[in-house]
Formats: sequence, structure tokens, C-alpha cells
Amino acid sequence: MTPPEVIVDALKKNDNFIILTHTTPDGDALGSSLALKFLLEKLNKRVEFYVEKPIPLQYEFLPGIENSRDLKDICIDNFNVLILIDCNQIKRVTYNRDILDRIKPFSGLKIIIDHHITEEKHEEGVFKWIEPQKAATGILVYYMIKEFDLEINIDIATNLYTAIIVDTGNFQFDNTSEEVFRIATELVRAGANPSKIYEHSFECWSENRFRLFIKMLNNLDISPPLAISFLSNSDFKDTKTVESDTERFVEFLRVLKEAKITALFREVEPDFVKVSLRSRGEVDVSIIAREFGGGGHKNAAGYRTKGSIDLCKKELIEKLRKYDFL
Amino acid sequence: MTPPEVIVDALKKNDNFIILTHTTPDGDALGSSLALKFLLEKLNKRVEFYVEKPIPLQYEFLPGIENSRDLKDICIDNFNVLILIDCNQIKRVTYNRDILDRIKPFSGLKIIIDHHITEEKHEEGVFKWIEPQKAATGILVYYMIKEFDLEINIDIATNLYTAIIVDTGNFQFDNTSEEVFRIATELVRAGANPSKIYEHSFECWSENRFRLFIKMLNNLDISPPLAISFLSNSDFKDTKTVESDTERFVEFLRVLKEAKITALFREVEPDFVKVSLRSRGEVDVSIIAREFGGGGHKNAAGYRTKGSIDLCKKELIEKLRKYDFL
Repeated sequence: MTPPEVIVDALKKNDNFIILTHTTPDGDALGSSLALKFLLEKLNKRVEFYVEKPIPLQYEFLPGIENSRDLKDICIDNFNVLILIDCNQIKRVTYNRDILDRIKPFSGLKIIIDHHITEEKHEEGVFKWIEPQKAATGILVYYMIKEFDLEINIDIATNLYTAIIVDTGNFQFDNTSEEVFRIATELVRAGANPSKIYEHSFECWSENRFRLFIKMLNNLDISPPLAISFLSNSDFKDTKTVESDTERFVEFLRVLKEAKITALFREVEPDFVKVSLRSRGEVDVSIIAREFGGGGHKNAAGYRTKGSIDLCKKELIEKLRKYDFL
Repeated sequence: MTPPEVIVDALKKNDNFIILTHTTPDGDALGSSLALKFLLEKLNKRVEFYVEKPIPLQYEFLPGIENSRDLKDICIDNFNVLILIDCNQIKRVTYNRDILDRIKPFSGLKIIIDHHITEEKHEEGVFKWIEPQKAATGILVYYMIKEFDLEINIDIATNLYTAIIVDTGNFQFDNTSEEVFRIATELVRAGANPSKIYEHSFECWSENRFRLFIKMLNNLDISPPLAISFLSNSDFKDTKTVESDTERFVEFLRVLKEAKITALFREVEPDFVKVSLRSRGEVDVSIIAREFGGGGHKNAAGYRTKGSIDLCKKELIEKLRKYDFL
């Protein structure tokens, strides 16, 4: 794979870069941003990476993260090029309108490097490199580094390896291709430490988060092919946790052999419920999510709804029956 | 890596092979045995793989498993060569003394292919290929197939990939090396399907097993750096489960960031307790296990003991204090 020539040229010819990624950044967002920053620094460019702080605890180990800047301090005046990584819309950089209003007037060159599906048209004149079939944006950055013939050092390798494992569920999701393993081989050869990076990225639960997880399991209703659980507003309060603490919870329910469809209801505010759906094989839960105004992929989708958890569960079961999924 | 010439020659020169592996076989035991059987069949040898039945549910998908024979029907009379895979002692093939007594008189050539540390001397005249630094026995079988220049087809690839992910915790343990990824790359190119094999091997819990897991979490005592849980004899009875259903339970507790040492007590019979210990980094739990007459590796060890669970926990904590681990 070769990066678009216009983007390679833009990196060569310009001098001042600002890198931004999406809100609540994950391992791919941070790892690919930091790896790209290392590349630009090797090319003797001025480059700053602005990101929402605090950095999630599990990603504090990423090499270079200590030199990232807090998004709330952003000032776009001194940069020629804005690079959007693992994100293809400025509005996804933050939910904070004040900060967004400071970014939007940027009048220099914009570059997008991402692997998410684009739902809206982009403005004219933006250089885009979007590859939805790639497992992680880190893979695109890997090819960019190759294009510049830069040696992958341990810092770059650690960032790119993290990007890959976070977006493939540590080589578990069906985007885990031969290419993913080929690149992982090279990153490990360059010094990335698989077990250490796994430990940092995935084995990082606080005791409170663990107690929330136990609540989810105790609330679980297994009715094959459906396994459905919920976390009430009081579950969050009792354990002093927030919605982001439920990351990877619904995926865990997949260990149940008989559960072809798993669902997790989170009452993030009283009577305001976020629903995550997962499925195996041919069951397309994105159809269900869209019925409720949500979206997603065939095997991983979600939506937001209102009402008591019991009511929301009843509505979901009705829709699943409508499509003969139950 | 090149296999020992004497073993390569023995495979070439002989015609009738029997393959055996260890009791309660896991993915490496089964996958490497089946891959070796495919190799020998390609070489037009007569070969039978005898293994304890029933095959664990999660490994029923392995290509070739349908042609494996039940160990209880074993008859060694017609074979020239016995190959022990992922196991280096005949006595580890089964706990059934009758069956063992039928295997022990085998007087032909014995070959051992394994990656476990050898604790005892082997009898004279046995051809051994033991590589404790290799992540899985499947990796040794991979090199053997390479030595014979055999094309790796999808069946062999699926077996070897399963062997590797089961023994590396799906690329999570610290035996996950560049070599592991290099071989995984080739196996995926040959047709192994990472997400499907992951699903078969790891996402296969029965509802009863899941209920046992919830009991373990509800019994959990988190006292950093220690997280300790137990499953009583009545927990097993209530959920209609057996000890083997606890596979990977203690590993799960590692998600807790603060838990440097995790322990799971299983009361397999009243007042008879099996203990699994796991640790991170420099804490060597094998020292503790040896104090109780058990053994294992630095970060994963175990032992058996007698007494109530409460008493056994107290004894463990005393030993951990003795070594300044708490």
C-alpha cells in the first residue's frame, strides 16, 4: 500500500503541523497520532499534537504522550497544516463548542488520515486518505513511515502496536488479517513488547470499575440466543464510576457460547439509556440500532433511547422478534 | 530452527506411528498432534492419534479431530514409533492406570516433541526434541513441516494457529515473540481464520460455567496488591460444573490494575483445595507454590493443600508476607 502522493508531498513541503484526533481518544487515535508526530519530527518539522486531557490512565505509557498538548490550550495561528488522525470530521475532535469554535477557522491545508467509514461529504480542498478496510489508522501511519523510508524505532513501534491491538481487540476481531500480523511482526522486531503493551492497554481496571463489571454480571439475563444486561444509574453511583468505565464490558459477554446477540443497557442519566448491541455471524444488529435512530456495523451497533430500563428491554426484544432474530 | 536430524530420519524411515499427548488436552496438545498427523499422512505413513475422549467442546472444530481415536481403545501392538507431543512423560498421557499399563510396554522407538521443562531424566534411547523457550509445541511442529518442505494447507494452518493462541493467551503472555507473529502471519496467509478460531477456542462458555465465573467474582476479595477468590465445593455443585470449567478464570483477575498477585482457591472435594497463583513482573509465585509442595513458573504457579478455604487463605497470606510480597 502506498499513501496518496499529494499527502506525501504536503508532508515534505510544509513546516508547521498540528495533529488532532477524535474526542475520548483510544489506543489507535493516540498511537497513530504519536507515531506520525515522530515521523514529522524526524523530517525536522515543527509539529504539535493537541488532545483532550487527561490522557486515559491506560495510555499514559505511550512514548511521546508526555509532549502532547492539552486541547483546551489550542491556538491554530502558527500552523500551516492541520492533520486529522483516526477521525474524519473536525466536529468529532471535541464536544466542547468553545474549543471547536477556535479550531474551525483554520484556513491552512487540511489532511485526513483515517480508517472509519465517511458518512458525510468533506469540504473541498481537503486531502483525504481514508481506508475503511484497514484494521487501524496505525496501519496507514505505518505505510506512511515506510514511504519515507524511516527506521521504525522502539517508540514508534510501541505506539503503532498499541494502535493495532486496541482496534483488533488484541487480534480477536475479524479485521485481524495477514497484513495485521505481518506489521505486528515488524513492530515486535523493532522493540514493541506484546505482553507489556497488552498489560498497559487492557489490564488497567480500577477496583471501582471491577465492581461495576460484577454488577453487570449479576444483572445478566441469559435467554439464548440473547444475553442482556443493564447498569442502572444507581449502579454507577454505588461504584463511583462513569459510562466510559463500561468499555469492553459488552464484548466480554461473547464468551457465552449460546449468546448470538448480546446487549448492554446503561442508564447514563435517570430514564436516559444507552444501548450497545453485539452479534455473531449473520445477525445484523445495525438494522435494529437504526430502528431506534442509532447506527454501527453488522456485528457491533448502538443507540440511545428514553424510558425505564425494563421498557427499553421490552422494546428491543420486540424489534429483535420483528426481524426474526429471536 | 531445524529439528534434530535423528527425529527427521525416524519420521522418514518408519511407517507406523502412534501419536499421544497429555491428559485433559488443550489447544496446543490437540493442534500440534493433528498437524503432525497431517504431515505424516502426506508422507504416506500409517498414523493414529489416540487421545482422551470426549474432546473438549471448544476443540471439536479442529480439522482432523474427527479421525482421532479414543485413548481407552488403545492397542500399541501394530506401531513402530510412539510420538509424545506437548508432553514429555508417558505417565502424563492419562491418570487411568489400566490404560497406562497398556501403553508402558511399548518397545518400539519413542520420540518426544515438547516445549515444557523436563523435571525428570528420560529413559535411554528416546529421541527428544524439547524446547522450553518456544511458546507452543505447535511451533516445533511448524518447523518440522518446513523441514519436509510440505505446503501448509488450511487444515494444518488452523491446527497450528490454535496451538499458538491457546499457549500465548491469544498473543497476550510474555512468550509472544517476533517468531510467534512471523509464524502466525504465514498461517493466516495459508487460510487460518483468526476471529473464527478465537471464537471457537475462547468464546465457548456454557451458561453453567458463566454462573460459576460470577460466583468467583462475588467471592472476590481485593486487597492490593493481592486479589484472592475461591470456589467452594457447593459453588461447583450449585452450578453443575467441574474443576476444568475454571480454565482462564484466574487470568481474568489480571484486568485489575492494582492486583500484582492473584489467587484462586478451588475446593475440588470437601477440604481438598487446589490453588492457582498468578503474578506480574518480579513477584515470583513459584517460590510460594514450592513452599506448599507445588510448582510452576515465576508468574504462574499452583499447589494442592488440605483444610478449609479460610485456613488455606490464611496460610497463603502468611507465606506471601514471609517473602515480603505483601
